Amino acid sequence: MAYADTRFATRRRALSAKLSGMRIDEMLVTNLLHVRFLSGFSGSNAALVLAKDLTASICTDGRYITQIAEEVPDIPAIIDRPSAEALLRRIEGPRRVGFEADYVSVAELENLQEACNEDVTLVPVTGVIEDIRLIKDTTERIRLVETAEIAVEAFEGLLANGEVAIGRSEREIAADLEHRMRILGAERPSFDTIVASGENSAKPHHSAGDRILRRGDLVTIDFGAHARGFNSDMTRTLVMGEADEFSREIYDIVLRAQLAGVDAATPGTSLIDVDAACRDVIDEAGYGEYFVHSTGHGIGLEVHERPYASKVGEGELKEHMTLTIEPGIYVPGRGGVRIEDTLLITQGPARIITPLSKELHVV
Amino acid sequence: MAYADTRFATRRRALSAKLSGMRIDEMLVTNLLHVRFLSGFSGSNAALVLAKDLTASICTDGRYITQIAEEVPDIPAIIDRPSAEALLRRIEGPRRVGFEADYVSVAELENLQEACNEDVTLVPVTGVIEDIRLIKDTTERIRLVETAEIAVEAFEGLLANGEVAIGRSEREIAADLEHRMRILGAERPSFDTIVASGENSAKPHHSAGDRILRRGDLVTIDFGAHARGFNSDMTRTLVMGEADEFSREIYDIVLRAQLAGVDAATPGTSLIDVDAACRDVIDEAGYGEYFVHSTGHGIGLEVHERPYASKVGEGELKEHMTLTIEPGIYVPGRGGVRIEDTLLITQGPARIITPLSKELHVV
Repeated sequence: MAYADTRFATRRRALSAKLSGMRIDEMLVTNLLHVRFLSGFSGSNAALVLAKDLTASICTDGRYITQIAEEVPDIPAIIDRPSAEALLRRIEGPRRVGFEADYVSVAELENLQEACNEDVTLVPVTGVIEDIRLIKDTTERIRLVETAEIAVEAFEGLLANGEVAIGRSEREIAADLEHRMRILGAERPSFDTIVASGENSAKPHHSAGDRILRRGDLVTIDFGAHARGFNSDMTRTLVMGEADEFSREIYDIVLRAQLAGVDAATPGTSLIDVDAACRDVIDEAGYGEYFVHSTGHGIGLEVHERPYASKVGEGELKEHMTLTIEPGIYVPGRGGVRIEDTLLITQGPARIITPLSKELHVV
Repeated sequence: MAYADTRFATRRRALSAKLSGMRIDEMLVTNLLHVRFLSGFSGSNAALVLAKDLTASICTDGRYITQIAEEVPDIPAIIDRPSAEALLRRIEGPRRVGFEADYVSVAELENLQEACNEDVTLVPVTGVIEDIRLIKDTTERIRLVETAEIAVEAFEGLLANGEVAIGRSEREIAADLEHRMRILGAERPSFDTIVASGENSAKPHHSAGDRILRRGDLVTIDFGAHARGFNSDMTRTLVMGEADEFSREIYDIVLRAQLAGVDAATPGTSLIDVDAACRDVIDEAGYGEYFVHSTGHGIGLEVHERPYASKVGEGELKEHMTLTIEPGIYVPGRGGVRIEDTLLITQGPARIITPLSKELHVV
């Protein structure tokens, strides 16, 4: 597992470099996503301490003795609980120890403070590991592509097998799609699958209920897979039987907006400009008031993570970031359309890792 | 919806009574499970403030204008964001305002403090709403029974349809079971389904992988449904083709332990004694070292919640609490058995809400 060792050690080195600049001697990591990101450990209870000099220790409980030895060959493991407190008790000498202030609760901080020796100072730290996560390394990019492939293949199977059909319920279609993703290797959906048909397609946050698909319905399916710690996210809107003029009109506008968003997603472009590229198409077509959310978000260990493409999006795109482009038009009482891909930002045009036809599909 | 109003108002009254005793004027509720518990609102962004005098206000963002009006007819709603800060800004006069210290992060507390007017004091509060959740009200008991029925019916269908079979993979079986729960009304599994076969059955935290079921395997299936905010949890262990002597022996011991635990689960019994009732049977049979976890946990809005039946369990059972009874024996390299039911504690014998045969089922 020399390859695995390199990957996690590289991430720890990036964190350590940031610590030095902040006068932090050691960083206590308690967010389990971050423990996994920095060590490879996937159990449900753990904490990790990383020092400036790159020495690290990890703690979990007795259930995971075998698993931590297999998954984390390169960091000494302590078996004790609670994990964070056990690690803090072992830190001696005057030390400034950072903790993840975005995830440690006010009540938990009290426990952490009690576990500290006298000359240890706990220092709140925010956003530092998230900064590292913004730029996806090789393994992360491979995992993200694999996870997106599960979703794409499941959706293709769903369509090929006639599982999106007039007379079936939103719930049945969601269940079938999730089953296909599970069989293809997903541990679970990355979020509750959305199947929004007919008037429900006008609700961006509808999930999947008992409504039966009817001829003429727009059907928006928004879904993703979670596998090996990573997530995917994509949306397609279909039409049942035949598309009326309204459906064709808004589908065409959303598709043009989505393609404009994809085109704009290149290194150096501000997130505000990416949002605007999408939004302008919809605004100009006169449907601006019906595009009620932002254009997209990063995806990785979490389904929604930085960067955010919106009217107030911060910063600009860089190579190896991820971004969804997901414009929509939602006309209450009539119907809606959303089309979403996930992109890997590369030099030149972005790589679409959810490569499924975006022509209007009449089922 | 007069019925719904009563239910949520009753819960708010219980919270308000506790606040008075703590010299808290208003309680800021930010845990979304608790917002739903106290108001009925099921959206993904909200906060609620409840005053001693039972006046309340709730805040969410623009996506949920329609939904909050439908779900929460009896509390004035504010549309703003961030929700908690918007509510705090509206509190005037010298007030002690409680916040949920177990769920508010250290970083978020800073934002809350900045939103407070000068004479508002934020006071950390822990465990108060959880205390109310310990005793399930009528609606909660109905929901828990409904959710358990989804799981039971799905499992019966799985067996009746021959989906647990030699030659199939753990992953396929998990996918089929989850699909059945979804069709029956679950929004998702309450946790990643465990299908642990053969040597994997000796790992209490195995999930469901690519191993193919073989003749003679023990197969432990631990699963639950999440529906309408509530969860279920149950486990059965089957054997494929034929059971050898070892399998029959440990199955019999675990079953006797489970029945002893169920018998012990009556109001007034300490959680330590419930654990001991189970554990003693396994200890006396000489397998004590292979029962590596605690006996059970409460279940409701969360899959694992108070009370906990373990060697260090706190307090005693009361009417209308929930408790799982889930002893297991795990012999590394050979195999394992776990049997789990969820109980509603009642006067007299507990009510088993996962009523499925516990005789050794040879598939």
